[in-house]
Amino acid sequence: MTSVINYNNDKGLLAYIEFLAASSLKSRNGNTDPIFDFEDALDQIEMAQLAVDELKKIPEVNALFAERWLPAPFHLDDLAKLPDGTLGNVYAREMKARGFDPYFYKKVPVVDDISYLKMLWRSTHDIYHVVTGFDTNPIGEIGLQAFVLAQTPIPISVMLVSFGMVMISIYQPTKFKDLMTEIARGYRLGSHTPGKLIAQRWDQFWDVPVSEIRANLGMVTEHYVASIA
Amino acid sequence: MTSVINYNNDKGLLAYIEFLAASSLKSRNGNTDPIFDFEDALDQIEMAQLAVDELKKIPEVNALFAERWLPAPFHLDDLAKLPDGTLGNVYAREMKARGFDPYFYKKVPVVDDISYLKMLWRSTHDIYHVVTGFDTNPIGEIGLQAFVLAQTPIPISVMLVSFGMVMISIYQPTKFKDLMTEIARGYRLGSHTPGKLIAQRWDQFWDVPVSEIRANLGMVTEHYVASIA
Amino acid sequence: MTSVINYNNDKGLLAYIEFLAASSLKSRNGNTDPIFDFEDALDQIEMAQLAVDELKKIPEVNALFAERWLPAPFHLDDLAKLPDGTLGNVYAREMKARGFDPYFYKKVPVVDDISYLKMLWRSTHDIYHVVTGFDTNPIGEIGLQAFVLAQTPIPISVMLVSFGMVMISIYQPTKFKDLMTEIARGYRLGSHTPGKLIAQRWDQFWDVPVSEIRANLGMVTEHYVASIA
Amino acid sequence: MTSVINYNNDKGLLAYIEFLAASSLKSRNGNTDPIFDFEDALDQIEMAQLAVDELKKIPEVNALFAERWLPAPFHLDDLAKLPDGTLGNVYAREMKARGFDPYFYKKVPVVDDISYLKMLWRSTHDIYHVVTGFDTNPIGEIGLQAFVLAQTPIPISVMLVSFGMVMISIYQPTKFKDLMTEIARGYRLGSHTPGKLIAQRWDQFWDVPVSEIRANLGMVTEHYVASIA
Repeated sequence: MTSVINYNNDKGLLAYIEFLAASSLKSRNGNTDPIFDFEDALDQIEMAQLAVDELKKIPEVNALFAERWLPAPFHLDDLAKLPDGTLGNVYAREMKARGFDPYFYKKVPVVDDISYLKMLWRSTHDIYHVVTGFDTNPIGEIGLQAFVLAQTPIPISVMLVSFGMVMISIYQPTKFKDLMTEIARGYRLGSHTPGKLIAQRWDQFWDVPVSEIRANLGMVTEHYVASIA
Repeated sequence: MTSVINYNNDKGLLAYIEFLAASSLKSRNGNTDPIFDFEDALDQIEMAQLAVDELKKIPEVNALFAERWLPAPFHLDDLAKLPDGTLGNVYAREMKARGFDPYFYKKVPVVDDISYLKMLWRSTHDIYHVVTGFDTNPIGEIGLQAFVLAQTPIPISVMLVSFGMVMISIYQPTKFKDLMTEIARGYRLGSHTPGKLIAQRWDQFWDVPVSEIRANLGMVTEHYVASIA
Repeated sequence: MTSVINYNNDKGLLAYIEFLAASSLKSRNGNTDPIFDFEDALDQIEMAQLAVDELKKIPEVNALFAERWLPAPFHLDDLAKLPDGTLGNVYAREMKARGFDPYFYKKVPVVDDISYLKMLWRSTHDIYHVVTGFDTNPIGEIGLQAFVLAQTPIPISVMLVSFGMVMISIYQPTKFKDLMTEIARGYRLGSHTPGKLIAQRWDQFWDVPVSEIRANLGMVTEHYVASIA
Repeated sequence: MTSVINYNNDKGLLAYIEFLAASSLKSRNGNTDPIFDFEDALDQIEMAQLAVDELKKIPEVNALFAERWLPAPFHLDDLAKLPDGTLGNVYAREMKARGFDPYFYKKVPVVDDISYLKMLWRSTHDIYHVVTGFDTNPIGEIGLQAFVLAQTPIPISVMLVSFGMVMISIYQPTKFKDLMTEIARGYRLGSHTPGKLIAQRWDQFWDVPVSEIRANLGMVTEHYVASIA
């Protein structure tokens, strides 16, 4: 059976315009809901389906989709007790230092591949920060999105990198050079790291040292990247 | 005397929104006016002034600004008579093959640094295509803008790269991978090429072989870039 | 002392564009926050100040501004005990029937005339529905805004009438005729009613029959309006 | 055979957003092309078809659609020779006084009902100004669109009235009261005039006194409207 899929790409553009205009009006002050609402509005564009199709060609990722794998529930206090330098320990320490809630993200019911992909990245996003080393400030976020974009382009990552370039250049132009440095760094690192962030069962790595995780992913050091960049 | 400059960054965002919406409605069919109108609307954002200030720190560029240098008028037929492989010959051949008019761009009166910068890049843009080797199709154009962005960020280049990422991902998602390949290639090439495109008095190079111009700019070969990328 | 006021009218347009785009993406499902957020973004346009200046020329309204009058707190259960046909009784019955919360509106601190005006109309808006007889469905809301617009134009009323015309004509064109009927009716009724809704101390009228309130406002009957329309 | 019609209402909203943003950036300086481009972008919304369907229920209009009637070509110099007070004479005098070209409007090929309707109103629009008495300045134009909207709502008229309310309130708020006066006047006049402007074969009336044309349309005098308003 072939189901007829009706894409509505114009809705994607309207969502982008809404996000641009809204961001020009007031600071989000750490409220991340508008980002997730924006992503939800992108569900109906063709690229959302293409991104899923592309991801499922990666066997490890396909397995995650088949299982609807999501990380097992955890508590920061438990992770904090793991040895120094392990993923769980570093993650818990940084989340606590910033006052971040691991379950900060907007939940959506997993009813299909597109909604599953959203829950997959949302529930593991803060782990990406620890593993890649990108800051959680606005410029670091965009840098991390560039890393993801290079590895496994999904609509929201494309949109956020594009959005960041426009908004920083218009409203904070003195920060534009720093932004491009981080975008370029993220894109290069992502391009050179064979292990995909989206393919990992992160809850199995809580007690693994971050340095070992990076090595397993084949993540090149910034020193090496600098030498080739 | 300190003149009071009133920026209106919101006008820049409104111009970007107009450009997005207009581009979703109909093909430009080779009409480049909307791009130049878009750039003109960016004159009043802070980044337009910062870009000028930054460019003038480069002595060769500062000299161009002081002189209000623009390339001497020329005819494609004359350039076509230059030896094979020279800038003039290759440029004339490609412009004729594509049916392009060297004076296709919207003219603005040069009344200040910002308007001068616009005439400077507009009147030399097609030469950039020849020297960098980027195609003149939509994806090649965005790739070239990424090259410029890496060398000397000016508002319109930032906007067009951002615009290209959004519009291709929404409306032509199957071309997105190619787009990112060209953006990444342009950005890397631009970052590694010490000679700035914007700093050259191009009309002095019509009879210089393109390969020699590239060498003088310090432009790395694509082969070399591929080896480090 | 003359304070320098910096208007930013472009922010008003960006807020309107955001509201349009957002409304095209998903139903608000009774969530009125986006409307109040929209109005808050209009604070910085020149018309917000002009509307206040104009309103303060009406002596009764000027007195409200001077006092920062807002209706005394009340409970629907108390109002419901008032005699049939009184404002309090009808209001309480209709609010309960619809499951509406009298304090549904977004609160803003009253720090100046513009913020006071917002709290003034927000805290009395549902009373307007009872007195004018306009429905609380989307078309009735726009009709009521047209009434307000005719009596005392404030930015949000203008925006909502304009918004309603655009969105209904684009997305629900079969309802457009009904919408225009209500807008025209609201505008005519508002134009012919000398007593301004915004000028009333509504909490003094809870025990007054609605018919008497209408007579006191000089509100013409729909029958009369129909005869002249 | 039932043809499948694919509406794209979102394109209508994107066209409106483009028109809003473009109008905030620069004055049109009498260039009317953006208005016609805007209307062309509305062809694909459902309301464009509904407006045609509604108009064709009026027998005289249906006949025009069947014939694809458009006014016979004419020259202002010929019309100017008609007796004082006739449609042709007044029209020619006013067009000349303003330096207007009778064929100023963007032409589109008549390939279906929607394109025919556009040529029908475009080719007769300036006659409407003479017959209704609305000025050709921005506020008068919006007033005339309100007249048309009341008689025979077509997408562009709805959009322009809505657009005028938003843009004048945001950017020229001191003119807002005058705008609403003209919109209300246009809407009332249009509502009370049984003869539809869109239904007339105007080229048969060049030698008819304007006062007689108004009487034949059943157009009430402004004095009368004022008495009932």
